[in-house]
Amino acid sequence: MSLLVVGSVAFDSVKTPFGEAKEVLGGSATYFSTAASYFTQVKLVAVVGEDFPETHLEFLKKRGIEFEGLERRPGRTFRWKGEYGYQLNEAKTLDTQLNVFESFRPKLPETYRDASFVFLANIDPELQLDVLKQVKRPKLVACDTMNFWIGGKRDALIKTLGEVDILVINDGEARELAQEFNLVKVAKKILSFGPKILIIKRGEYGALMFNGQTVFAAPALPLENVFDPTGAGDSFAGGFMGYLSQNGTINEASLRQAVIYGSVMASFNVEAFSLDRMRTLNREEIDARYQEFKSLTSFESI
Amino acid sequence: MSLLVVGSVAFDSVKTPFGEAKEVLGGSATYFSTAASYFTQVKLVAVVGEDFPETHLEFLKKRGIEFEGLERRPGRTFRWKGEYGYQLNEAKTLDTQLNVFESFRPKLPETYRDASFVFLANIDPELQLDVLKQVKRPKLVACDTMNFWIGGKRDALIKTLGEVDILVINDGEARELAQEFNLVKVAKKILSFGPKILIIKRGEYGALMFNGQTVFAAPALPLENVFDPTGAGDSFAGGFMGYLSQNGTINEASLRQAVIYGSVMASFNVEAFSLDRMRTLNREEIDARYQEFKSLTSFESI
Repeated sequence: MSLLVVGSVAFDSVKTPFGEAKEVLGGSATYFSTAASYFTQVKLVAVVGEDFPETHLEFLKKRGIEFEGLERRPGRTFRWKGEYGYQLNEAKTLDTQLNVFESFRPKLPETYRDASFVFLANIDPELQLDVLKQVKRPKLVACDTMNFWIGGKRDALIKTLGEVDILVINDGEARELAQEFNLVKVAKKILSFGPKILIIKRGEYGALMFNGQTVFAAPALPLENVFDPTGAGDSFAGGFMGYLSQNGTINEASLRQAVIYGSVMASFNVEAFSLDRMRTLNREEIDARYQEFKSLTSFESI
Repeated sequence: MSLLVVGSVAFDSVKTPFGEAKEVLGGSATYFSTAASYFTQVKLVAVVGEDFPETHLEFLKKRGIEFEGLERRPGRTFRWKGEYGYQLNEAKTLDTQLNVFESFRPKLPETYRDASFVFLANIDPELQLDVLKQVKRPKLVACDTMNFWIGGKRDALIKTLGEVDILVINDGEARELAQEFNLVKVAKKILSFGPKILIIKRGEYGALMFNGQTVFAAPALPLENVFDPTGAGDSFAGGFMGYLSQNGTINEASLRQAVIYGSVMASFNVEAFSLDRMRTLNREEIDARYQEFKSLTSFESI
């Protein structure tokens, strides 16, 4: 089945204690699409400027990602500049230039409208809702958001949440959205806004999935070399949605497997700057790391 | 098999956002013994003052804990006062009165010397080493420590670590001890000091166990009501060592089960102030919660 993603494509400049990368390929939709492309047919919707080079399009093409919905507009591509300390858990944003992304109004090509799986990456919740009006009958809709929208467009966000099946969000944002600290209470509150499933990303601590009845806890893989956490959350979402789209069945078992595949894709992504690890990664390595997660977490019953 | 623990017995005064408790039963050896008492025969070594009431001894007795090694000395019992914020992850110490604990020199009763399992709770590493000289041929020795000793008695601590099989320690302390930030590097470094196994406790994020070859990640159970995290780490260690002592076999499978039992005991402990949850807890509830951890973490292979 095919998977539609709407989000950003950007040039990132990132500094970590382990090195620096300037104006490299980034953006939520880019990370998401690339991670998902190992599992399913991805249809990308985003906007870039005139400065977006052919080589990046060739990368997307090589990954089999459809980019008919990647609009090219007069002006410069979205730029983000950030820095991480040793903890690598939260970026300090040094500069944001929205450029062509500022007036982004997602418009789905006709061939995208029957996508079965939809991921609304972190954009204005009003635009997220507008995208949902353009798709026909998606089987599953998931979205992400961030503190900027939680604080600034809460009502629109709550409205969007009423229309999605799954919210994928980090712990700090989940707490802000729910206005609660305890994560069990956070989950109750957020599920009451509409989503049937809440996934809370906790960086190096892994992810939690709540469905109102049960909880699933997936650890992150302890890695010796983490170079750049940029895009880890979007890679997680890409692996998660990509696997569900490949599998086709949505139940507790496939959702849990999808969380693990999400964790696998995030773990690869942080091993290099930008999407560099994805340039050589193959599906065999992905499945081998899925097995590593199995060995990381398994214990005998009593 | 029997399990010896050497540590502190104290009166704690604790304030959390959910309430307050004054001069309640606490101390590393108390939490450890109580948690372990659900699994095995525990022999406690600690010191209290003349103000230690009979009711607390009755509690230990009721839990089947041997306290021939609980020395009663002239003076007051160790007192600790601390406060937690909403994050509940780290206590702010408001007051410490060592009292009789200051001159504590553990002396094992003759009947304790053939204990098969030994846990050296957080005390001066020189005293930990001295305890090891008093036991005959323990099958397994584990210890805990804290930043105070890591900073102040590093050489003695490294010497102690050369004599123990397992170190159980929290993440901040592990990083301080290894002088590394990345936990995989931390584990390599600490295992090079002597222990065959390192368990890193991460509070609400669970625990990691390293043996130099494989890693095991256990989550913490997401709880809706966490009242008081005091003693969670010692309850973890008590469940961990208690189960190993009950099981008798030490291998990767039993160690992983022990980490889960440790997590189970910690999860109960934080549900009430002091040892209050342990006053009503029974083994059936413990085993049911072990199953909850199974359901929390399980996912299908691919």
